[in-house]
Amino acid sequence: MEKLVIAYSGGLDTSYCAKYLSKEQGFEVHAVSVNTGGFTKEEIQKIGDNARKIGATSYKNIDAVLSFYNKVVKYLIFGNVLKNNTYPLSVSAERIIQAIEIVNYAREIGAGYIAHGSTGAGNDQVRFDMIFQTLAPEIEIITPIRDKKLIRQEEIEYLEANGVEMNWEKAKYSVNKGLWGTSVGGAETLTSEKPLPDAAYPSQLQEKEPKQISLGFTKGELTAVNGEEHSPENNIEILEEIACKYAIGRDIHVGDTIIGIKGRVGFEAAAALITIKAHHLLEKHTLSKWQLQHKDYLANWYGTHLHEGQYLDPVMRDMEAFLENSQEQVTGTVYVSLHPFRFVLDGISSPNDLMNTGFGKYGEENNAWTASDAKGFIKILSNAGKIYQHVKQNQ
Amino acid sequence: MEKLVIAYSGGLDTSYCAKYLSKEQGFEVHAVSVNTGGFTKEEIQKIGDNARKIGATSYKNIDAVLSFYNKVVKYLIFGNVLKNNTYPLSVSAERIIQAIEIVNYAREIGAGYIAHGSTGAGNDQVRFDMIFQTLAPEIEIITPIRDKKLIRQEEIEYLEANGVEMNWEKAKYSVNKGLWGTSVGGAETLTSEKPLPDAAYPSQLQEKEPKQISLGFTKGELTAVNGEEHSPENNIEILEEIACKYAIGRDIHVGDTIIGIKGRVGFEAAAALITIKAHHLLEKHTLSKWQLQHKDYLANWYGTHLHEGQYLDPVMRDMEAFLENSQEQVTGTVYVSLHPFRFVLDGISSPNDLMNTGFGKYGEENNAWTASDAKGFIKILSNAGKIYQHVKQNQ
Amino acid sequence: MEKLVIAYSGGLDTSYCAKYLSKEQGFEVHAVSVNTGGFTKEEIQKIGDNARKIGATSYKNIDAVLSFYNKVVKYLIFGNVLKNNTYPLSVSAERIIQAIEIVNYAREIGAGYIAHGSTGAGNDQVRFDMIFQTLAPEIEIITPIRDKKLIRQEEIEYLEANGVEMNWEKAKYSVNKGLWGTSVGGAETLTSEKPLPDAAYPSQLQEKEPKQISLGFTKGELTAVNGEEHSPENNIEILEEIACKYAIGRDIHVGDTIIGIKGRVGFEAAAALITIKAHHLLEKHTLSKWQLQHKDYLANWYGTHLHEGQYLDPVMRDMEAFLENSQEQVTGTVYVSLHPFRFVLDGISSPNDLMNTGFGKYGEENNAWTASDAKGFIKILSNAGKIYQHVKQNQ
Amino acid sequence: MEKLVIAYSGGLDTSYCAKYLSKEQGFEVHAVSVNTGGFTKEEIQKIGDNARKIGATSYKNIDAVLSFYNKVVKYLIFGNVLKNNTYPLSVSAERIIQAIEIVNYAREIGAGYIAHGSTGAGNDQVRFDMIFQTLAPEIEIITPIRDKKLIRQEEIEYLEANGVEMNWEKAKYSVNKGLWGTSVGGAETLTSEKPLPDAAYPSQLQEKEPKQISLGFTKGELTAVNGEEHSPENNIEILEEIACKYAIGRDIHVGDTIIGIKGRVGFEAAAALITIKAHHLLEKHTLSKWQLQHKDYLANWYGTHLHEGQYLDPVMRDMEAFLENSQEQVTGTVYVSLHPFRFVLDGISSPNDLMNTGFGKYGEENNAWTASDAKGFIKILSNAGKIYQHVKQNQ
Repeated sequence: MEKLVIAYSGGLDTSYCAKYLSKEQGFEVHAVSVNTGGFTKEEIQKIGDNARKIGATSYKNIDAVLSFYNKVVKYLIFGNVLKNNTYPLSVSAERIIQAIEIVNYAREIGAGYIAHGSTGAGNDQVRFDMIFQTLAPEIEIITPIRDKKLIRQEEIEYLEANGVEMNWEKAKYSVNKGLWGTSVGGAETLTSEKPLPDAAYPSQLQEKEPKQISLGFTKGELTAVNGEEHSPENNIEILEEIACKYAIGRDIHVGDTIIGIKGRVGFEAAAALITIKAHHLLEKHTLSKWQLQHKDYLANWYGTHLHEGQYLDPVMRDMEAFLENSQEQVTGTVYVSLHPFRFVLDGISSPNDLMNTGFGKYGEENNAWTASDAKGFIKILSNAGKIYQHVKQNQ
Repeated sequence: MEKLVIAYSGGLDTSYCAKYLSKEQGFEVHAVSVNTGGFTKEEIQKIGDNARKIGATSYKNIDAVLSFYNKVVKYLIFGNVLKNNTYPLSVSAERIIQAIEIVNYAREIGAGYIAHGSTGAGNDQVRFDMIFQTLAPEIEIITPIRDKKLIRQEEIEYLEANGVEMNWEKAKYSVNKGLWGTSVGGAETLTSEKPLPDAAYPSQLQEKEPKQISLGFTKGELTAVNGEEHSPENNIEILEEIACKYAIGRDIHVGDTIIGIKGRVGFEAAAALITIKAHHLLEKHTLSKWQLQHKDYLANWYGTHLHEGQYLDPVMRDMEAFLENSQEQVTGTVYVSLHPFRFVLDGISSPNDLMNTGFGKYGEENNAWTASDAKGFIKILSNAGKIYQHVKQNQ
Repeated sequence: MEKLVIAYSGGLDTSYCAKYLSKEQGFEVHAVSVNTGGFTKEEIQKIGDNARKIGATSYKNIDAVLSFYNKVVKYLIFGNVLKNNTYPLSVSAERIIQAIEIVNYAREIGAGYIAHGSTGAGNDQVRFDMIFQTLAPEIEIITPIRDKKLIRQEEIEYLEANGVEMNWEKAKYSVNKGLWGTSVGGAETLTSEKPLPDAAYPSQLQEKEPKQISLGFTKGELTAVNGEEHSPENNIEILEEIACKYAIGRDIHVGDTIIGIKGRVGFEAAAALITIKAHHLLEKHTLSKWQLQHKDYLANWYGTHLHEGQYLDPVMRDMEAFLENSQEQVTGTVYVSLHPFRFVLDGISSPNDLMNTGFGKYGEENNAWTASDAKGFIKILSNAGKIYQHVKQNQ
Repeated sequence: MEKLVIAYSGGLDTSYCAKYLSKEQGFEVHAVSVNTGGFTKEEIQKIGDNARKIGATSYKNIDAVLSFYNKVVKYLIFGNVLKNNTYPLSVSAERIIQAIEIVNYAREIGAGYIAHGSTGAGNDQVRFDMIFQTLAPEIEIITPIRDKKLIRQEEIEYLEANGVEMNWEKAKYSVNKGLWGTSVGGAETLTSEKPLPDAAYPSQLQEKEPKQISLGFTKGELTAVNGEEHSPENNIEILEEIACKYAIGRDIHVGDTIIGIKGRVGFEAAAALITIKAHHLLEKHTLSKWQLQHKDYLANWYGTHLHEGQYLDPVMRDMEAFLENSQEQVTGTVYVSLHPFRFVLDGISSPNDLMNTGFGKYGEENNAWTASDAKGFIKILSNAGKIYQHVKQNQ
């Protein structure tokens, strides 16, 4: 029997695929799930149980939280990346790492096939297929859901007919949780005008009392929360734990999919949004004007390429080199106040703060230059404009 | 006597200048204030009264709200411009229009001199001087505050010695109000770590009950609020009136000044922030991916140049042509919910919405293309990456 | 019979298609060729003769030189567009206009089908198909060469078997000529290391005596050659006539195709290269630093989008608005010396020249500012750097 | 006596300064010259002799060719940097390194003052002053030529009156030679319309017979010429030696100075232009489309910042990290033909060539994808455009 690895979530679509591929197509099916931060132990247990019920030859959960942080999330923070100025790329970013882990696993166990449950209408198929094909052109990709366009009822009936009886009731909202945020889709996100109801979001307001927290950054990485040091990916989880009680970080992303249509998806990403905004504020105090300017250009593109599945393009490594280098001075503490549904950046302290260095204060008296220096500066700064007006008026 | 126009605010600095320039320097002083949206009738009356008390030969208030909207604010909306992703450029933008109005007025009345009250440590001196010099190189600029580095007490004593007795008590916070927002500076903004206290902001929370409003845009301009049509600059005022009761739009801007030092300033700009974010959402539904991408690049630079006083550079006109053209389809209604201290973009409706056109839905079944089309697309999209990996592995 | 329009070149591939589609598929075949500057009257006559021999129901040649200039070439000049800093996009640009003209013609005569002779390995299929599908989604596209992967001998045999006997001898180099340059492909361009031999280029050296010519531009358009005024597209032809005798404008373009593989193609484009370089020089004298900077960014992307068939994306119209606006001052005369195989830009004269305005001369004594102004300028320009070094050294 | 370091060229201006500063101002004058590739041993000898004649306390020539290459030229090659698409930044780049070497030397010998001979109308004053002030704010900068606006005759008379008699005859053209090219200024470059005469250029045509050479690159650096390996900076000199005999690399740069006026300067830079163009061609074969795209953006800015004296801005280090990383695959050989006054890039060979990998050939039959794949690709690539047209037509 030929070995096939299936990206398995425990849900209806991938359960159908697993059964169908082993029974009808005769594959030796190896189920694998990749945890990029969203799974509890119970969920992993349940996914494994389902895999076994369906008859998978093996099941493995790969813990990819650290790899997700190191390969992607870190650079999204360095770059303050928010797609369309809104979305921290929660799902887009995860899919990349999941694909890489799956293809590595498939090669490891010598599988000739990888199956996944994506439809033909979304971004995920592109991200998965591109990475599979690029890293392992010898492995064939199999996508029954995309190919057969089945409806849920057909899948359930097929599974029942083959002795797999589980509760396939469809959740009202499709929720995808990971280290860098949770996406939420439902009837409302298929419209342009309706917001998601409060209840659709995974976290509900539990804390109403405002609270100030501190976030410690070392060379751009989140190394402490409230003065306690942990690894950055742990700190993101700790921050999420604190901030989700305030129901912070909800919004709706509207954007262009890789296949050219517009998409709309809700998300909740308290830790991601607070981390990015706090980090950005620290950068405003510690980076030069030109670093802020050019970093922004590159980071915007970094996000776009990542979103569009181009993680393996060598330009991403070049950008990461730039981003990494730019973080040398981004060390300090950011003070953030949490309120129900929102947060406020109170300020920062940093040994590298370029403000308040004793050199000259904005709008205040200063000793570093004279009125005459300022006038000379402005005079010469005006040269180009003066010449242009002079020429234009004399036409 | 030689005619001098002074940019007059009615405050201590410009009152000192007006007196000093007429009495000690023998100028015929013409005081002028330019209203870009911040002045009430009472304030204008008071500025005029002060001017007369000090002995100005004439006083004139120029109403520049419409000109401010048409020349600058409109393009800041088209471009969704937020400096450093935070600040709607409230003051930066006003200064440009004020300078243009003042220099036009000076030429109109045949003045050979323009005086203003800026210090040598801020951005405003650059914006004023650059525009004055460029548009009227024949007019001399006079800046006693910058040149003499006087402290407040000296100015007060001089005025009193010359029979000008007014209440010069310094406000705890220096506030600058205009159509596009209010800036707030104080002891806290001179530090890096302290936020402004609630009381420092001009608007206090008056409404706690959430409310949904609708904003109607026509080719990118705000043409209706809650279904009622007015001119765009009126609509901004109407929106501000509604939203300021929720104390929306407060934040602190940290950025690089034109003279190379970092500056920090608080602001409150409910209407500006809601308008920009609502407009941007409408664009996400009605513009192409590439319009969003390139518009963003240009608009970011448009804001930077404006901030740095380069409004007269001809590239600004080229950018405005791009921005204007890009708004052709940006027509529709945006639904916004107002809450205390925050707002939520609920959704949009537009005849030009590129989502939900019946063409194909994100993540849903579709009839516009087949699974085979999607696989062909991804295969060829992967070509470049596959070749790169192939070459790299065979080294 | 169902009407089909075929993009007909008179060559083997499209002749095969025309015959095959009428005889085997039963279409009423209407042959059309679009002249974007490369065809002589004799060639059009010959294409028409061939079309009739093969049995096309009708043949029409569309003269699209003016439309090509107005819709595309003009903006390529405004933007100084050279793909990968080398290639004036000669063929890429033509294909767009040809596709638009063909689809308009197909709609005009009520055809339900368009056929073209592109293979499945190039850029042209993408440019043609994208424009056809986008402008006329109701028209079906038929591409026998791409679908059937025939070799030349099979096509010749089929045509002979059906009574079409012509001379199908393959040219050693495939040459594509148009207003904006001629592309040349051959055995050498399929390698990475070999240049094209001299004889492969369409123009051979006829003039050895250097000669200075003058090019007159009005708002960025080439309105005169050697002082004689004609329409811009005529002037391009006149300039080509003069410069091709010097065998100017040969080079090889290496770049990324839309389908992700690298491609290499020779070209000769004397008029295009001289016009672009002369225009750029005039801009260096008449545009502001920021116009040059941002125009370059946009124009680079304009070229890339055009190359990739995205001419219909609305962002292209926004860019054209910017480019058009930027040309207001680009009026003057450029002096160019022609030598065998190369040209030299000698200089320009322009009423809008921003150099030599009497304002201040580079490196020379000047009266517009003092040494003290210059020192103040540099002092304040150094502020940011001084603060950064100060902070960094005190860490 | 207080120690002063003077940037000494041996010419009239700096000789005057040296004499004036020691005699009238009582400084202990230490003359220093920095060789960035332009000086012969004889010239260094002569500069030293002059320094001693004038009475400098010490003279030192600093050999900075390697440091110039490693700190600047290397990145200009990586980035294919040509300012305004023409000028390899020959002089701009040198000045930076000269300033750094001088300020380091001044600190080393404990000097409290640095003098240089720049005027107040050029770029060099900005580059020098900025770097001096930023790296050594405690050192005072002294610039007699800028301050006193002397004419040549006054300087000569002062020197003669003080017993310094040398031949100060002014060269018709002011020539500045370095590793990365030679600039040439004269009466013609002060006009907009006149080219420099042949004789003004330092190299005259000596070879008329075309010759093919090969340039070997390793990770973007020029490691071999004609198969012989030397250090990159040596190879640049070797290449210059070969190519200058063909009088290659002459052109005129027109651009914006830091002080806002337009400047025009001739240059000859055979090795720089050939190296950059050859390197760029190799990149077109070995880098991804997105690497070429984003590298171009950054490199353009790298050149602009360098030109404007912003070498010490930390963003330059970030850009260098990007550029360095991007060169990983840029290894191979480029074949270049030299002709009188011009060169032709014949082709390249590289183990990392992304063309001709057996994967699929541009415009040729291929086996990596089918006609159906291509059609699916184009169909989905057209989605966004189709939706846009659909929405627009239904308005």
